[in-house]
Amino acid sequence: MKTVTILGATGSVGSSTLDLIERDPDAYEVLALTANGDVGKLAAAARRVRARRAVVADESRLPALREALRGTNIEAAGGIDAVCEAARMGAGWTMAAIVGTAGLKPTLAAMEHGGVVALANKESLVSAGGVMTDAAARFGATLLPVDSEHNAVFQCLDPANADRVSRIVLTASGGPFRERTLDEMRGITPAQAVAHPNWSMGAKISVDSATLMNKGLELIEAFHLFPVSAEQLDVVVHRQSVIHSLVEYVDGSMLAQLGAPDMRIPIAHALAWPRRMATPCQRLDLATIGRLDFEAPDYERFPCLKLAREALAAGGARPAVLNAANEVAVAAFLDGRAAFLEIAAIVSDTLERYDPAAPETLDQVLAIDAEARHIAGERVKDCVD
Amino acid sequence: MKTVTILGATGSVGSSTLDLIERDPDAYEVLALTANGDVGKLAAAARRVRARRAVVADESRLPALREALRGTNIEAAGGIDAVCEAARMGAGWTMAAIVGTAGLKPTLAAMEHGGVVALANKESLVSAGGVMTDAAARFGATLLPVDSEHNAVFQCLDPANADRVSRIVLTASGGPFRERTLDEMRGITPAQAVAHPNWSMGAKISVDSATLMNKGLELIEAFHLFPVSAEQLDVVVHRQSVIHSLVEYVDGSMLAQLGAPDMRIPIAHALAWPRRMATPCQRLDLATIGRLDFEAPDYERFPCLKLAREALAAGGARPAVLNAANEVAVAAFLDGRAAFLEIAAIVSDTLERYDPAAPETLDQVLAIDAEARHIAGERVKDCVD
Repeated sequence: MKTVTILGATGSVGSSTLDLIERDPDAYEVLALTANGDVGKLAAAARRVRARRAVVADESRLPALREALRGTNIEAAGGIDAVCEAARMGAGWTMAAIVGTAGLKPTLAAMEHGGVVALANKESLVSAGGVMTDAAARFGATLLPVDSEHNAVFQCLDPANADRVSRIVLTASGGPFRERTLDEMRGITPAQAVAHPNWSMGAKISVDSATLMNKGLELIEAFHLFPVSAEQLDVVVHRQSVIHSLVEYVDGSMLAQLGAPDMRIPIAHALAWPRRMATPCQRLDLATIGRLDFEAPDYERFPCLKLAREALAAGGARPAVLNAANEVAVAAFLDGRAAFLEIAAIVSDTLERYDPAAPETLDQVLAIDAEARHIAGERVKDCVD
Repeated sequence: MKTVTILGATGSVGSSTLDLIERDPDAYEVLALTANGDVGKLAAAARRVRARRAVVADESRLPALREALRGTNIEAAGGIDAVCEAARMGAGWTMAAIVGTAGLKPTLAAMEHGGVVALANKESLVSAGGVMTDAAARFGATLLPVDSEHNAVFQCLDPANADRVSRIVLTASGGPFRERTLDEMRGITPAQAVAHPNWSMGAKISVDSATLMNKGLELIEAFHLFPVSAEQLDVVVHRQSVIHSLVEYVDGSMLAQLGAPDMRIPIAHALAWPRRMATPCQRLDLATIGRLDFEAPDYERFPCLKLAREALAAGGARPAVLNAANEVAVAAFLDGRAAFLEIAAIVSDTLERYDPAAPETLDQVLAIDAEARHIAGERVKDCVD
């Protein structure tokens, strides 16, 4: 019996995690589910998996949550501190799937009692990588990546030969504009940018996929997760997204993980680790797929990837500034205040204007994040669109 | 310091193993090198790696070996029994790379003291799979496969999740006649058949690659090496031979091993296992390779693959008969006594005419092998060419 907590239970990753748990309910004891504000979905899930506690981050929704849980023994709680408290209930396995900087403190709280923390919150490693990995080491927590690329690397990485890894190669779909010239990218609309070829996902991450910034952020995450230097991290464009990433060893062998585009596959890997569990996910049939293509990424047409590599190489606070500026730039693009190609310019200018010291605490990370957002916001005002 | 013996030190696999050992001579103590008859090459290698003993299987070459080792402390010996004695010297790691049924007894002898036996002798698993795996279990020896496909599977197979493997997929280059119709295959000459697209190898194995019999024999080997049923073994044609094989788990993940077509890569894996060692082998660059293709194998155009699958499913002595008949048929094709398409017919007719009980000892395996060769030889006389 595995004790489980899901931070961010109503989002896409949280829902996929619940789907897996509900297929074998006797194998799990769910301590807590948390959500930002969707109390209907949260309460329904808490009832289905018989969670001990349900927590809504938006405290104003606590009365509605209580109402939705009426007639059950499930405890209801509300507010950010209650989310962190839920994370500290001592689950052996925690899914950290709260989106954005709001996920940082609950993720850190989940590590305090050791155990396994399945990491779906990007900011934990991009903006706060050093703080988080230091904390995991201090508390004896195990961080397991659940996004498809890093989970693929984790599956291919033999701990007994971690020092014999020569290169980690993340695959990138290349996004919807893989074949466009820079000139053709000028007029790209938000609707065009969110149409991802292989995965269905939110608008923000779809734009990141179209600029290849997502791959840059993943390089930064990989740097914190795996025992390699920045120079040992590579990207290859692989439009079918069948190979999710590769690890090269010093003997010349490469190991790769492949799978259907279903987030439940990497989540199941993290949930059952170090064992494996059966899932209903589609199996790959390579003969039907027929062909896999690969090409080098074009740093000129996709300057966001270059900016991310530079931020990774420079280290310190640069990745946190990059990530915050990118969030502001993408939001501006999505609501028509910036053109597609201005995303990279906003990020670049923000990095140029703001170069703080490396953060040592989560509060410092959050302060850097806020300041970078402010500076990027000012920069957005110069955009012509 | 690893103690090493190489059975079949002058062949392709033996030479590649020596190449790796010579790059780090202080890491290995070479107990014995054996060869069939090439005493010049054997003595030179024994001198280079300071082997304790050199053994030539062809006893008539022993005086020449003694001469070639003059002035050294290296012991010289000759004859089949001396080869088996060398295998029993207690090396922690033995490369079993003697070609053909001649390799069976020395391979078994190498297992008797436990340790790691790197297996490059096909017959050990195809004809004597049950005998060999029983012996390995009894003696506490570890069998490590070194041909590229099985080594790939071994690299992708997590021992802690052996019971969670749902499928093993061996890749096949498809050989030089991948795109030919049955009718176009009628006039194929030995010269055309030995021109393998990806690997440089001997005539016999090149023909096996052209008929896909090699992949059928590999399925039989995989059955004995890995914890799967015959139905869980698949083949996919992958003409670039970059992915060497794949393992599918019950969660939907597939792991694959990729590498340049250099036998030193899987040999290095077996030599350093459970660690990994650096090699000078070429690294893969997927962007340069550009594309990987996959298609289902065509059992109608490649009946040898079908015959092998049937022999595997039936078990017992069928794989030994199949292998012996195929050797005779390929030899007849190579010296012009049988047409390319008659290879499958000879094997099929031999299997029909000879159906002995499952062998329980190596001597029974060798008797079945000899009888199947005799029956196949008689059948060759009916061929028109």
